[in-house]
Amino acid sequence: MKSIVTAAFVMIGDELLSGRTQDANLNFLAKNLTEIGINLREVRIVPDLEEEIIFAVNSVRKKFDYVFTSGGIGPTHDDITSAAIAKAFEDKYQKNQLAAEILEQHYGKEDLNEARMKMAFIPHSASLLDNPVSSAPGFRIENVFVMAGVPKIFQAMFFAAKKELVGGARTESREIKITLTESVIAKNFSDLQQKYLQVAMGSYPFEGGTSLVFRSTDHQAIDSALAEMVELIEKIKNNSIISVT
Amino acid sequence: MKSIVTAAFVMIGDELLSGRTQDANLNFLAKNLTEIGINLREVRIVPDLEEEIIFAVNSVRKKFDYVFTSGGIGPTHDDITSAAIAKAFEDKYQKNQLAAEILEQHYGKEDLNEARMKMAFIPHSASLLDNPVSSAPGFRIENVFVMAGVPKIFQAMFFAAKKELVGGARTESREIKITLTESVIAKNFSDLQQKYLQVAMGSYPFEGGTSLVFRSTDHQAIDSALAEMVELIEKIKNNSIISVT
Repeated sequence: MKSIVTAAFVMIGDELLSGRTQDANLNFLAKNLTEIGINLREVRIVPDLEEEIIFAVNSVRKKFDYVFTSGGIGPTHDDITSAAIAKAFEDKYQKNQLAAEILEQHYGKEDLNEARMKMAFIPHSASLLDNPVSSAPGFRIENVFVMAGVPKIFQAMFFAAKKELVGGARTESREIKITLTESVIAKNFSDLQQKYLQVAMGSYPFEGGTSLVFRSTDHQAIDSALAEMVELIEKIKNNSIISVT
Repeated sequence: MKSIVTAAFVMIGDELLSGRTQDANLNFLAKNLTEIGINLREVRIVPDLEEEIIFAVNSVRKKFDYVFTSGGIGPTHDDITSAAIAKAFEDKYQKNQLAAEILEQHYGKEDLNEARMKMAFIPHSASLLDNPVSSAPGFRIENVFVMAGVPKIFQAMFFAAKKELVGGARTESREIKITLTESVIAKNFSDLQQKYLQVAMGSYPFEGGTSLVFRSTDHQAIDSALAEMVELIEKIKNNSIISVT
């Protein structure tokens, strides 16, 4: 097992960049990957332009263990992701027989028009990702999982993809919430970070206090660092800890 | 005036990639840029790692007219954006006198500890972006606007930045909502796209129908394309239009 497994997410769609649509997939993917020991390390959002999709996917697929894409695999002219991915891999873009059969079963032979059949066109060497919501499948090519943008379908396809993912060491996360502003604990927090280099420590202000987050695959180190920080905070100001979770 | 003005957004922060925090800035920025005639063309989310921040910012700042960043300009050790931006521009990272005065006025001389003073350190050639929420300023260096990640502060800094932005032709957006699934109108929609190349036409399925979006800086072309599409839809199926906005 690889100890650190990484991933990138490429979201494809003009609608995210224009502000027409609010993203609903990133947080779902981030949480679900973290849960199975995969670290999401980079996200890119690009428009529905072939060269931008190719550039983004080729930039991240060599750098990370897994890549997920969302959007642009529907039946209309602006759905160009599948063809772009084929080009990115220098693979043939062609009708997948199994995908065609799935669509025929779903729509019926008479209603399977050209636009619908377009959804059976994927790169030659890709394998299908099941879509229990609306039948038209996503696909996987090498380490890249190509999924729909509609959140319900994106999620269903992720659960299909999940069976093929091999995670690494799970990153655990603990949190101390305090009533103090972050600049009051900054010095101690920084010293603690220097002591526990294997724990990533982050400080996030919120209305009325600060959240201190400890993340690591070394669960014992987290526990020790957390305990030390709790002690330090109590010394700085009694009763300033809201919660430790 | 440039007719097409473009922008990129680099979001910096482990918390977005781990799923701990849900992004709340992208949609705000996208909508506000669209409103003033600036096209958001690319988004990247990167972790709190110096080399990743430098790489992302340097990748986009030459390619787009404006770049906005969020996150990593606070007082704690994990706030490394300002120093990374200085490196990206090969500029000195040093205390800005005006920023130091603003912080001193806000915190008082005695309470201005080292961590707080860190927020006055920015690239030498940067100018300040006002922060009416919590005083510690953002900054601008060349075409890059460096802003806080906390949504309330991000928004305040954007309104400060906005005074310095010069937009281009405003992209107008119109929408037809229909009860039909997108594959039914795909052929006609694609033909219409071929006829009006200056209008970007997108199709977005939702529960119970499809939304057809027309975007262009050529407002007359949008009107014509929209009218033709309405007519086509009525021919395909009467009373299938939910709304035209």
